[in-house]
Parts: sequence; structure tokens; C-alpha cells
Amino acid sequence: MAESASIQKLLDELERLPGVGPKSAQRIAFWLLNADTVTARRLADAIIEVKQTVHFCNTCFNYAEADECSICADPTRDHTTICVVEEPRDVTAIERTGEFSGVYHVLGGVISPMDGIGPEQLHVRELMSRLSDDAVKEVILATNPNVEGETTAVYLARMIKPLNVTVTRLASGLPVGGDLEYADEVTLGRAIEARRAM
Amino acid sequence: MAESASIQKLLDELERLPGVGPKSAQRIAFWLLNADTVTARRLADAIIEVKQTVHFCNTCFNYAEADECSICADPTRDHTTICVVEEPRDVTAIERTGEFSGVYHVLGGVISPMDGIGPEQLHVRELMSRLSDDAVKEVILATNPNVEGETTAVYLARMIKPLNVTVTRLASGLPVGGDLEYADEVTLGRAIEARRAM
Repeated sequence: MAESASIQKLLDELERLPGVGPKSAQRIAFWLLNADTVTARRLADAIIEVKQTVHFCNTCFNYAEADECSICADPTRDHTTICVVEEPRDVTAIERTGEFSGVYHVLGGVISPMDGIGPEQLHVRELMSRLSDDAVKEVILATNPNVEGETTAVYLARMIKPLNVTVTRLASGLPVGGDLEYADEVTLGRAIEARRAM
Repeated sequence: MAESASIQKLLDELERLPGVGPKSAQRIAFWLLNADTVTARRLADAIIEVKQTVHFCNTCFNYAEADECSICADPTRDHTTICVVEEPRDVTAIERTGEFSGVYHVLGGVISPMDGIGPEQLHVRELMSRLSDDAVKEVILATNPNVEGETTAVYLARMIKPLNVTVTRLASGLPVGGDLEYADEVTLGRAIEARRAM
């Protein structure tokens, strides 16, 4: 390989991205070399801007540009229903279905003793304090339908039920062992519609 | 979708990249959001740096950081054999085989009357002036084995033969209608080894 040093550096950085192997990295690098400077600059700026402006919502821990994310700050959303998810990408997946008008709570992961992650490492305490003010009527547990997700859901259900809040789980219909992020809109929408009491 | 404005902007820019659809763009965006700022910054900087430092080689029109690319500037390469390719990515593909020790000439495309591209739009004049100083003994035509690539090779062969320079073409063995960029090293290496006179 006789790539110039700066092309090699770009290839190295591109190959770190998820789903980008050596061939795709090369395709993207040559595309960028071919593109006009403004286009390349816009991508670089978008990367820098997103890191500078995006933080976590103080309420639900979704990504946000202000103290609160756009969903928590929206008065037309149903603030009495909280959908608990593992990661911000799951918020995106559920929003895409258009079936949910409540608000979210992002745990930042799942309970996984193998990886040394217990409830203390997740935003569980903050969820409980959101539930302490009596306004919340229902919590939908939308963790992934796999072992860790189910464990986390069972744990949370046990914590929340004594507070007299309805606890529901996404309906089965999601392929077990799969990943919520990759479910298609219809399946995920139906799963929200047919959520079952726990 | 309730993405923040700067996440949406990043998604838009990522989706422009070749081979990156909405799902991959989202995966990459969330990965960048999750990554530490230094990692994200390194990618942004690599993109900007490559656009600032990489230009075209004055001799062969490959990508270069100086006036000449590292291959043209290398005295250990055989400057009497020129391999003519369509694009800089084809240089990378041939270098990867390790079968070629000569130098290159990047045309910047192929003759394609449908797209209004004739020899004048390519670096053909510059190739002819490289051949005018008698030092070059062989020109290998390594345009892609498809209609435009063959047309260009035939055109160049007719131009070059009167100069008393050996003109060769990559051996068949490359799948016809395919793209040189995606050939595996062994196939491409063998094609260079068994190049035929035109």
C-alpha cells in the first residue's frame, strides 16, 4: 500500500466505525477525496457539533441539546406514562412507530452481573424519584427481549409495583433474543399496542 | 423522529456516504455520541486534513501530499513501465497485489460518449507527453474490463503503438463487466503477471 499518510490516517479512523470494514473505509475515503471541500467539511463539522451540543437530558437521560430533551420539554406528550428503555437509540426506534405519546426514561444499559453492571450503574434511582410524585400512572418496560433485558424488567417491576403504578411490558411478537433497535416499525408498533400487565 | 437538530444534521451528512443507509448512519451516529470526544475529534480532523493535504500528483494524477506522489518520487520503482488506470483507487488495488514495481498514470475516468467524456476530459495528453521522452518501454492498460474500459484501452493502444512502446492489457481472468476495485489480490496479481500484447 502506498497511501499517503493522511489518507492512511483517515482510513484508520473510518475503520473504527461500527459496520465499516477496510473495503467500506476505502470507498468512503475515496468518496471524500473526490467530494468538494464543502461537503467533507460539513461532515467533519457535524461530528464536532454533535459532540459539543448533545448532552444527556436531566430528566430522562435521552440525548438532548438543552437541559431537557425535546420529548420531556413537550407539554403535548403524556407525562403520566413513562417508557423505560436501555439506550437512546431505543427511543428513536419507538418514536418511529408513532404509537407512543408518553415520555421516556433511558437506563443507560441493562442489569448484567457478568459485566459487573447492577441497578446502581443504571439510572434506576432517578426513575424511582420520577415515580415518587404520584403523577405517573403507567410504566412500560421496553428493555430488549433477551436475558439481560428480561432480568432488568423483572427487577424494575418488583421495585415499581408497590408504588401503585401500572407496570407493563412490550407484547411478545418481538423476536426473542433479538435487538429492539432492529425491529421493523409495524412489529414494534403492535408490540406497544398489545403491551401486557406484569 | 424526535432527534435533536445536530443529531439529525449528522445523520443527513452520514447518509451521503457511499454504502451508508439510514440504519448504518444511525448506528454510526450513536456510536460517535457514545465515543469520547477525542475519538470523534480525530475522525473529524482526519477528514479535514485529508482535504487540505491531499492533491493530485503532477506527474501521474494519483493522490499525493507533495508535488509528486510517493510512487513517482520513489527512485527504486521502474520508471520505464507505466500502468494506466482509471482512478486512484485502482492504484491502491494494484499496489495491494505486490506484483507491480513500475509507475502509474491515472486517467481520471474513461472514454464514455454517453456521458460526454472524450479523451480531452481525461489525462491523455499528459500521458502522451510522458511517453515522448523515449525512456518508457511499456504501457500496461489497466482500465476496467467493461465496455468503457475496453474502448479506452483500444483508443490508447492505437495512440501509443506508433511511438514504439510496448502496449499491454491486463490478462483476462478478471470477471468481465466487473469492477477492478473489488478484485481479490490473487486474481488481480495473476492478471498483471499474464498481461497480453495488444
